[in-house]
Amino acid sequence: MLIRAARADDAPAIWQVIAPVIRAGETYALDRDMTEADALAYWLAPEKTTFVLESDGAILGSYYLRANAAGGGRHVANAGYITAGAASGRGIARAMCAHSLVEARAQGFRAMQFNLVVSTNGRAVALWQAMGFAIVGRLPAAFDHPALGPVDALVMYQSLGSRS
Amino acid sequence: MLIRAARADDAPAIWQVIAPVIRAGETYALDRDMTEADALAYWLAPEKTTFVLESDGAILGSYYLRANAAGGGRHVANAGYITAGAASGRGIARAMCAHSLVEARAQGFRAMQFNLVVSTNGRAVALWQAMGFAIVGRLPAAFDHPALGPVDALVMYQSLGSRS
Repeated sequence: MLIRAARADDAPAIWQVIAPVIRAGETYALDRDMTEADALAYWLAPEKTTFVLESDGAILGSYYLRANAAGGGRHVANAGYITAGAASGRGIARAMCAHSLVEARAQGFRAMQFNLVVSTNGRAVALWQAMGFAIVGRLPAAFDHPALGPVDALVMYQSLGSRS
Repeated sequence: MLIRAARADDAPAIWQVIAPVIRAGETYALDRDMTEADALAYWLAPEKTTFVLESDGAILGSYYLRANAAGGGRHVANAGYITAGAASGRGIARAMCAHSLVEARAQGFRAMQFNLVVSTNGRAVALWQAMGFAIVGRLPAAFDHPALGPVDALVMYQSLGSRS
């Protein structure tokens, strides 16, 4: 298992990983019908650092890291992670999250924030908590789940200061 | 006092209103040194609806309204308000916030969220609470205040559903 910076020629493989999650619309607040070009422009945007997790030459996951705000908020990072459906349950999200926390510290960030964790995504919530994130906010009915209807979203946060 | 949609030729007057607040860096998580062109591109971005508050032909405040997220989060609005320094204390922020809540409902939004209210901006926090927003999250040391150092930021939220 190798996590490395994404290259331009990874785009088709990244799309294979992220498309099902975007199309499902259950965990990311993105337009479910967004085009491949728009999705890749979002995932690989210039203000983001994007990584892929590779195993035996196949890309099984990808994540991005960026500043969550500018100015007085630029020391807080934000990240998004997607694991290929077929690779679920192999610790890939956990590995990417651990990598992102190291990378965020290396880039000088002093905290990391997830702005909108869908509360019904229990596996993700539990994983982020295990990785040190606390639930610091709850947004009532802030996410329209395609199957469940309006559900709460969580704001999760962790300071990176104490270990940097 | 009239609140109306901003026009392209309002840009110089809007800049006069927002520049001191951006340069101060105490309330908005924006690059304090951003250029006039970048600031106006941000404030008048195509995905935003931007308004000005006019009194006796002078623009005393401006606000923008936008979707805070896409996909399953697109029913939640976000807004930013700035009052001209010289017009402080005249209820201009309150008038703009009230207008934005009506406008948000008219645009079909079912909630409004402020992502990063600087906790030391007590007057704003109290006003948003008076306007129906609840503090739903606290982000520890998420804002580097130029004078006070790291301070907490608040996530504030209100459902618009019950009155729409």
